[in-house]
Amino acid sequence: MSPTYSITHEIRNDFGVPFTHRLLFDRAVLNPENPLLHTVFECRTDGAPRSGIIAVVDQGLANAQPDLQAALTKRFSDPSLPELREVLLVPGGEACKNDPTVIDRILASIEKHRIDRRSYVAIFGGGAILDAAGFAASTAHRGVRVVRFASTVLAQLDAAIGVKNGVNRFKKKNFVGTFDVPVAVVCDESMLESLDDRHWRDGFSEAVKIACLQDATFFDAISDAADLIRDRDMDAARPIIRRCAEMHLEHIGSGGDPFERLEARPLDFGHWAAHRLESMSDFGLSHGEAVAIGICLDSAYSHLIGRLDETEFDRIIDVMTRLGLPISHPLLADDRLLTGLEEFREHLGGRLTITLLDEIGRGVDVHDVDLGILRRAITHLDSNASV
Amino acid sequence: MSPTYSITHEIRNDFGVPFTHRLLFDRAVLNPENPLLHTVFECRTDGAPRSGIIAVVDQGLANAQPDLQAALTKRFSDPSLPELREVLLVPGGEACKNDPTVIDRILASIEKHRIDRRSYVAIFGGGAILDAAGFAASTAHRGVRVVRFASTVLAQLDAAIGVKNGVNRFKKKNFVGTFDVPVAVVCDESMLESLDDRHWRDGFSEAVKIACLQDATFFDAISDAADLIRDRDMDAARPIIRRCAEMHLEHIGSGGDPFERLEARPLDFGHWAAHRLESMSDFGLSHGEAVAIGICLDSAYSHLIGRLDETEFDRIIDVMTRLGLPISHPLLADDRLLTGLEEFREHLGGRLTITLLDEIGRGVDVHDVDLGILRRAITHLDSNASV
Repeated sequence: MSPTYSITHEIRNDFGVPFTHRLLFDRAVLNPENPLLHTVFECRTDGAPRSGIIAVVDQGLANAQPDLQAALTKRFSDPSLPELREVLLVPGGEACKNDPTVIDRILASIEKHRIDRRSYVAIFGGGAILDAAGFAASTAHRGVRVVRFASTVLAQLDAAIGVKNGVNRFKKKNFVGTFDVPVAVVCDESMLESLDDRHWRDGFSEAVKIACLQDATFFDAISDAADLIRDRDMDAARPIIRRCAEMHLEHIGSGGDPFERLEARPLDFGHWAAHRLESMSDFGLSHGEAVAIGICLDSAYSHLIGRLDETEFDRIIDVMTRLGLPISHPLLADDRLLTGLEEFREHLGGRLTITLLDEIGRGVDVHDVDLGILRRAITHLDSNASV
Repeated sequence: MSPTYSITHEIRNDFGVPFTHRLLFDRAVLNPENPLLHTVFECRTDGAPRSGIIAVVDQGLANAQPDLQAALTKRFSDPSLPELREVLLVPGGEACKNDPTVIDRILASIEKHRIDRRSYVAIFGGGAILDAAGFAASTAHRGVRVVRFASTVLAQLDAAIGVKNGVNRFKKKNFVGTFDVPVAVVCDESMLESLDDRHWRDGFSEAVKIACLQDATFFDAISDAADLIRDRDMDAARPIIRRCAEMHLEHIGSGGDPFERLEARPLDFGHWAAHRLESMSDFGLSHGEAVAIGICLDSAYSHLIGRLDETEFDRIIDVMTRLGLPISHPLLADDRLLTGLEEFREHLGGRLTITLLDEIGRGVDVHDVDLGILRRAITHLDSNASV
């Protein structure tokens, strides 16, 4: 029966794991008359007990939308939705990614309320809390079901779309995390209404980023809409947010490497500096603001090495300015910034790869950075900022 | 340019993530004359710095094989292999899955030695340390490269083959973990030589399990080889270990659900009780021993409800006995055992599903357990054990 084997023997198995990634855009999704959540949560009909759900809610969002908790309780009293077993309030922003007790609290709640692989963790908040709570949920029972309710512009057009989560350790951003695909990402316009102006604006830097890398026409659209967006015109912002989210989603599925097992990450334009600026500013700069500055810096560098022409560079600076986003920062002159390059290489693994621009709509990966020219780019930005 | 969007809008993306799973069987893989490791580790030729490796070694293995550390240092002095940056000794067995500082030590070493996604964590040990260290490595940078060196029978034919890892929390086995595919699983016969008799034998219960579920011919082969295996005849054990590993590997790839996002886990025969017995005995019972008892219990239950005939039940008891494995235990009479059914349901999510036998080679999933008959099965086993 059993074959005989030589001492040296190899068995190899190639297999694929299928995932489905869903983005749902709407408004007032917690209104009991809105049927959207029935398409998100599985209503079991096989005789199993009603599944459970815990909600992890950004404390800032709960403060800004005081009716949210009552709305949650009311919506999930519907017996064809999961049973709401706890609402956990968690500090939002980078704080929750630096505090290991946040992970412990979420795991303890999952254990206490017997959230299993057929039950849900619903996360309401911005990118940071989606990352931290998503990490906890992705490791409990090796992954319970996650639904992300993105409450910021940045989350709706970028942070919530990805298949990554993570928390900071050893003062390194996202040092610990997993790749995981949520059951659904729900982008509810009503949740954006309570954002302050700064956090309304700061997400649009990620739209500029993806336009710069991939789509000059989309860049034109952002540029056309920039003044209205700054004035919080939702009709102007909606197509930008959705198109950006769509481009992110397409990139994940079509890139062929959604879990980044290979090297390139071409959507990371401007991010090596952004990550450093956030931590050097003790997160006084938001991610979106840091990305705006990082994009301007790598655009200036692209221009100074002769890749990006001056008109295009000026258009990038102009759109950021009209969106109300920063284009430079005194911390750029701090030499600690440059250690960000090595940190970025280490996080990606292997060679340093950063993305520059040949023109708006066309990114290019490079593996070398001339620190002298980089310093000139910083000065160049600084002079643009003081105009 | 941007399309207009209605308020309610859905975007959906289906994608697959490709994985390759490799098992390598050999002996003396750390011998510098053995070329096997060159097929495991990538030797970069793109100008990037030599990649790094840290080794996490089971303390028990290091004690039993005192030359191992020197052999590691010597083997990885080869410049076409990664650079060995630290050897971490970690207590093996369930202890390492209960102790959160093990995870912290491994993460700190990954950070300190700049192990990135192109670098390696090599884990040397049995199932528990492969689980714990594998979990740490799968979360650092969202997953650095792992090579598993399985040092026990149980690991070589089962534990190291899976795509899962995990640690215990809240006194629940594998409460926290991830799905992850290692770069390779290396099964080195020389590492089995230092096992004591108990840990040599206990892995074979998993071979009996998979034979009971899927392959009556394989069961015959185990039965034929049982006495020689008990006497540690490697030539008799080799085909059993490899065929069992191969069946596990096939199951992962062909089951269509390697990351267990759906419900059934048909290879979990005998495991609901085994998990409880391990923890009720404070891990005085090894996993393999607990599985042997769990298989016998579920076989007795299968017999008493009229699924498995008596001759086949007797053959299962006989092969376990000749392998030197336990078939019953006083803790079976402890009513805390039955809470294991609920815990098992919760871990899987949704309905309770346990696997029984219709005959040797044919498992069947059921969703109900009659506790009265289960208690009779325990008594039945007990009387078999005292024969």
